[in-house]
Amino acid sequence: MSHGGDRYRNKVRLDFSVNTNPSGVFESVKQALSESIAKAEHYPDQEAQKLREELAKVLNVDPDWIIFGNGASEVLMAAVRAFQPKKVLLPVPSFSGYQWAVRAEGAEIVYLPMSEDHQVTEDLLESLYKDADLLILCNPNNPTGRYIDHDLLGKILDRCLEKGISVILDECFMELSDDPEGNSCIKGLETWPNMILLRAFTKSFAIPGVRLGYMVGMDTERNAKIRSQLPEWNLSIMAQEAGVAALKEIGRLQKSREEVFAERERLAQSLTEMGVTCMESNANFILVKSPVTDLYERLLEKEILIRDCSDYQGLEKGYYRIAVRPKEENDELIRQIREIINEEQK
Amino acid sequence: MSHGGDRYRNKVRLDFSVNTNPSGVFESVKQALSESIAKAEHYPDQEAQKLREELAKVLNVDPDWIIFGNGASEVLMAAVRAFQPKKVLLPVPSFSGYQWAVRAEGAEIVYLPMSEDHQVTEDLLESLYKDADLLILCNPNNPTGRYIDHDLLGKILDRCLEKGISVILDECFMELSDDPEGNSCIKGLETWPNMILLRAFTKSFAIPGVRLGYMVGMDTERNAKIRSQLPEWNLSIMAQEAGVAALKEIGRLQKSREEVFAERERLAQSLTEMGVTCMESNANFILVKSPVTDLYERLLEKEILIRDCSDYQGLEKGYYRIAVRPKEENDELIRQIREIINEEQK
Repeated sequence: MSHGGDRYRNKVRLDFSVNTNPSGVFESVKQALSESIAKAEHYPDQEAQKLREELAKVLNVDPDWIIFGNGASEVLMAAVRAFQPKKVLLPVPSFSGYQWAVRAEGAEIVYLPMSEDHQVTEDLLESLYKDADLLILCNPNNPTGRYIDHDLLGKILDRCLEKGISVILDECFMELSDDPEGNSCIKGLETWPNMILLRAFTKSFAIPGVRLGYMVGMDTERNAKIRSQLPEWNLSIMAQEAGVAALKEIGRLQKSREEVFAERERLAQSLTEMGVTCMESNANFILVKSPVTDLYERLLEKEILIRDCSDYQGLEKGYYRIAVRPKEENDELIRQIREIINEEQK
Repeated sequence: MSHGGDRYRNKVRLDFSVNTNPSGVFESVKQALSESIAKAEHYPDQEAQKLREELAKVLNVDPDWIIFGNGASEVLMAAVRAFQPKKVLLPVPSFSGYQWAVRAEGAEIVYLPMSEDHQVTEDLLESLYKDADLLILCNPNNPTGRYIDHDLLGKILDRCLEKGISVILDECFMELSDDPEGNSCIKGLETWPNMILLRAFTKSFAIPGVRLGYMVGMDTERNAKIRSQLPEWNLSIMAQEAGVAALKEIGRLQKSREEVFAERERLAQSLTEMGVTCMESNANFILVKSPVTDLYERLLEKEILIRDCSDYQGLEKGYYRIAVRPKEENDELIRQIREIINEEQK
């Protein structure tokens, strides 16, 4: 149950373990949070009506297709429960939260290793066993940062529909990735009613402390089942108000994406020059393989947190995930890693 | 899924449908919420370590006995899931959230009607069937406001222990009731390891919008199972910081209790004089039977919300739950109900 490094039991000056928007929390979102405090004495709206209507407009979907959660992780657990799967297919390496959710339901997990360069390939099509009932995919994938080829993803979704396999497609990092327009499946909800999309305000708007995520799916009967697995008031007033304010700023994510892209390429280039292997990424983080295999510990001594990925299914010691942060922070990370590698080579 | 009235789809000036501390949100709690906003960009502490340690001190229990939830309702659902009951005993009338949680798990509910005056009696002892695996009790009970006789409660817990029946004892209103010291089972956690206590900051500190509840139980193996049914980061940073601040104010609840007691007796007396039947209450709300059976609708016309209890198992049309609010609000409610009853009698 430890992800992204633990800033609560370590001294942390710079946090590269958490993949949120490096632009930080927008002022208007902070303002909304601040104003929401006066409403703390009221129960939150169970229907999150205002937020629902605003999000439905932004996504151009039916408001009833949306289910909010206290973080995407809550909706994920509720969806897995509602699906009552017996056998769940999990391409790896991927986010460990999927295992947490599937284990809570007590279903069997079948790990499907990605290719040697950590990509989902045509091989996955062959692995869609007819006795599996749920596939969980992440696009762009965490911790690798890569998109699933869009045509291939379409084929996978077609095949799942054909075989009666439900799909949870996690797009939590989509809004911070290079080309959401060309890669999101949000427009395919009606083509693939067997699919639900998972999304989060957490990453896009840098508010993991507030807890706000959601899913979108067009099967309203199934949605009611998922909703019944969630507590009656699962969204705080703070989360609802922050969400409404965040949606008004959605246009600003384009700039965040551009900054992420530029900084990611710069960071990757510097790391590569030092002999750190950087996997190609489309997202706001990079999976690296370091020649120094205690990089996590050595950076922590310098109060810098990165994500040790050695506990990911399909990865091993030496793999780390590094978030793309603002320029000054990235520069400091580059400096510190260079120092560690130079020491090592003495 | 509608409780306590819906202020989001009605115009509400005064809300008597929600049973929170009439003292409102303490300034220091608001302050803590305000300061927590600067931390929104961080993931919350999964272990809620600071809050856990503070609460453990206040309750005088082992920190590992506590599991926090995004509201007590979240821990309730997780506990029911972890227990995997087949048959759940539910004395009624009681809080409808228990049904929500049990239905989500798909277990059978056996309703055990309370006595004619809505009390848990010795009869319950005879109803502890050996094929039942979970009993959910509320003390003081919502919506009736009555304590379960403390000796009887001990006998019930003994019998459940003997028969291998788990007990969820909901004490969410205990801290606002007449005599927590003499009625809470917090000191019996070791006597009855089959019991978990459910508590909430929501009611005691008037922060339902923030979402913060917890359970306490001494079986740490079972606690781990319950924790595994919760999302990994289920407590917002706001909730954790508000909780820590609230615990520092716990001494002030004694004054809240005294105010609740005085206002409740005054409110009940006025209502009784008008011909409204008031059930005896030990809590911060009163269950009433009104001679006017559309009291909810008539008060709503005046922008006053009370809880219509006609949808509670074991109650019928004409039953309402009224929260004890500050003096001026109670006076206004009395005035308005008097007006409605006078009109009726014309």
